[in-house]
Amino acid sequence: MWRDLAPLGRDTASGGYRRYAWTGADADCRAWFKQQADSRGLTYELDRNGNQWAWLGDPAAGDAVVTGSHLDSVPDGGAYDGPLGVVSSFAALDELRAREAVFSRPLAIVNFADEEGARFGLACVGSRLTAGQLTIEAAHRLTDGEGVTLPQAMEAAGYDPYGIGPDPERLARVGAFVELHVEQGRALDLTGDPVGIASAIWPHGRWRYDFRGEANHAGTTRIADRRDPMLTYAETVIAARREAELTGAVATFGKVSVEPNGVNAIPSLVRGWLDSRAADQETLDAVITGIEKAARAYADRHGVDLDVVRESFTPVVEFGHALRDELGAILRGEADRPVPVLGTGAGHDAGILSASIPTAMLFVRNPTGVSHSPAEFAAEDDCVAGVTALADVLEGLACR
Amino acid sequence: MWRDLAPLGRDTASGGYRRYAWTGADADCRAWFKQQADSRGLTYELDRNGNQWAWLGDPAAGDAVVTGSHLDSVPDGGAYDGPLGVVSSFAALDELRAREAVFSRPLAIVNFADEEGARFGLACVGSRLTAGQLTIEAAHRLTDGEGVTLPQAMEAAGYDPYGIGPDPERLARVGAFVELHVEQGRALDLTGDPVGIASAIWPHGRWRYDFRGEANHAGTTRIADRRDPMLTYAETVIAARREAELTGAVATFGKVSVEPNGVNAIPSLVRGWLDSRAADQETLDAVITGIEKAARAYADRHGVDLDVVRESFTPVVEFGHALRDELGAILRGEADRPVPVLGTGAGHDAGILSASIPTAMLFVRNPTGVSHSPAEFAAEDDCVAGVTALADVLEGLACR
Repeated sequence: MWRDLAPLGRDTASGGYRRYAWTGADADCRAWFKQQADSRGLTYELDRNGNQWAWLGDPAAGDAVVTGSHLDSVPDGGAYDGPLGVVSSFAALDELRAREAVFSRPLAIVNFADEEGARFGLACVGSRLTAGQLTIEAAHRLTDGEGVTLPQAMEAAGYDPYGIGPDPERLARVGAFVELHVEQGRALDLTGDPVGIASAIWPHGRWRYDFRGEANHAGTTRIADRRDPMLTYAETVIAARREAELTGAVATFGKVSVEPNGVNAIPSLVRGWLDSRAADQETLDAVITGIEKAARAYADRHGVDLDVVRESFTPVVEFGHALRDELGAILRGEADRPVPVLGTGAGHDAGILSASIPTAMLFVRNPTGVSHSPAEFAAEDDCVAGVTALADVLEGLACR
Repeated sequence: MWRDLAPLGRDTASGGYRRYAWTGADADCRAWFKQQADSRGLTYELDRNGNQWAWLGDPAAGDAVVTGSHLDSVPDGGAYDGPLGVVSSFAALDELRAREAVFSRPLAIVNFADEEGARFGLACVGSRLTAGQLTIEAAHRLTDGEGVTLPQAMEAAGYDPYGIGPDPERLARVGAFVELHVEQGRALDLTGDPVGIASAIWPHGRWRYDFRGEANHAGTTRIADRRDPMLTYAETVIAARREAELTGAVATFGKVSVEPNGVNAIPSLVRGWLDSRAADQETLDAVITGIEKAARAYADRHGVDLDVVRESFTPVVEFGHALRDELGAILRGEADRPVPVLGTGAGHDAGILSASIPTAMLFVRNPTGVSHSPAEFAAEDDCVAGVTALADVLEGLACR
């Protein structure tokens, strides 16, 4: 299964994956999903928002147990983020069939469209649309870095962009959604466990900082006459690190765009994107306020204008305690100690859906914690432990 | 004359000019030059390196007086940097004809190709090739941001890239080259003079700083586990400003490139370009050493790898005292005090040619000092004073 999926959308230079929504690499991954569904005799469904479903049993029966994740990637992403959840779902079904499990509820495996938001800048588009957390109008306005809109991209890929929107009837069929994902930190490595259960997704957001100064000649403009926005940007990057260290939050400037971006020109504009997340809202507010306050002081000092725009925000997501405790009880059955319960700074489709349906997540150990990078890794034994745990959970939920 | 040139290559959004070598905008400017030459009955010549010449008198007679500048621009450049020198050259010739001046030496007006280096990253390509300061092989390796090589760009524009190279015979015809240029600082504004004479071009260079860290998820990677090259880059930007302030030099990071440049990804690579210049070599060495030393200390602290590559370097250019003093004497004739003599941090074709032939420069006051920006400006009175001064200089040199 992995062997067929591994080469799709892989950049041979970086070794990373570039599976962006509605591209050729994405289409290849989606064809792989359908082929996996067909080869297992599952009923394949494509929903109005481009999410793919593979059903065992009658979808209309209701109270289904659903598992799955996503197949798209960030730029030069790793092999596990997303695909591990989809591959493990099929593998867990194979395991349950080997156990000759008898299903009392319908089971489905799902591949959510455009989870990473690498192309259009908004994460979890497929699940947001389905859950009614993204309006059709806003989705239609999404535009990639080349100026291609989401409707244009969907049409080019053979999908109908005018049929997208909320899908409450489909969600109403789902009694529980469980997403398995490679951990994106080192918590399980530190506790020594192959598998953990999610407690909550940290609140997080993206803020765009536009520093505007005055374009000028880098060789002839006296230091005293400069209004250099690169300097203010640099000071703000350092302030963000300082605020994160003080509070235990994370704050990152990972993307920057400069005008005119010439070697011998003081920039007129430096635009930096801040990603920040914290365990609770109060801490996040303190971090964001602290960074913006520092940035405004630096900007004033250098005669630079600053606009700060919040581009996206997701409040804290607490996964429902009932389903989480049920998973804990199922998995504790064979372990000699409780499975660890941990928070995460990363957003997931499970976080979006948790507002509509009972949702839980399983994490598989990531020994280095590296994520969104070709160096992302999970040991084979841990992946097998993940499949076993997911099979146990699905059996516990769907075969009672 | 200005009216025909002003709209060429102008970006309607920024108001700045985008006249990059061997593009359509560049071709329009070059057609304008030829039309100006033709309309004045001058002999038009295109040399092997794409530089345009307009001759009054016999080019082969030798000991010619040549003036001119360039018509290409930086990204979103101003209207004056380059074109003021070419327009003033034609206007000075018109003035001399109105004075019924009798020429004892041939006179030529020149437009040097690709002075700014905005497209291929190397400044003064036309004059460097002519003066033998750039090898044909190195020129053929130049590549723009889209992967187009200089030979491909020249061929697309209808020029022969295989005929380029040193042109000592053409240079041997030139007895003196005088370039008029808008000042790129505020020295003349501070002294209250409309026109000045160049003493020297500061030594200057470009260094590429490659900061390599580890790509990782911005939401889930603990601060303590990060190897974030953006942080080291930011600290280095601030160190560069500090070193410049301490020494009276200039040091600028105006261009940056980030991989993968995703909002939710700690970068794997931040590449920043440092432009630095100082009044003398010793000061420049101290600045460059200080910045690199600081950057290496920051990189070590954050587990970031740093490579520093010197991409270009031009030593100090002292314009010949004989020609400079001659200009000073000619211009002092009608002024009530000596014309100011000033250094500059900007490179020019005149600086390249000064190694081969007697060369001098005139500067026209720039009241804001703004350069390489749509806001670049010179007052009409000062432009007229520049034309008069240039006409005086050409008359003094060529009509003795």
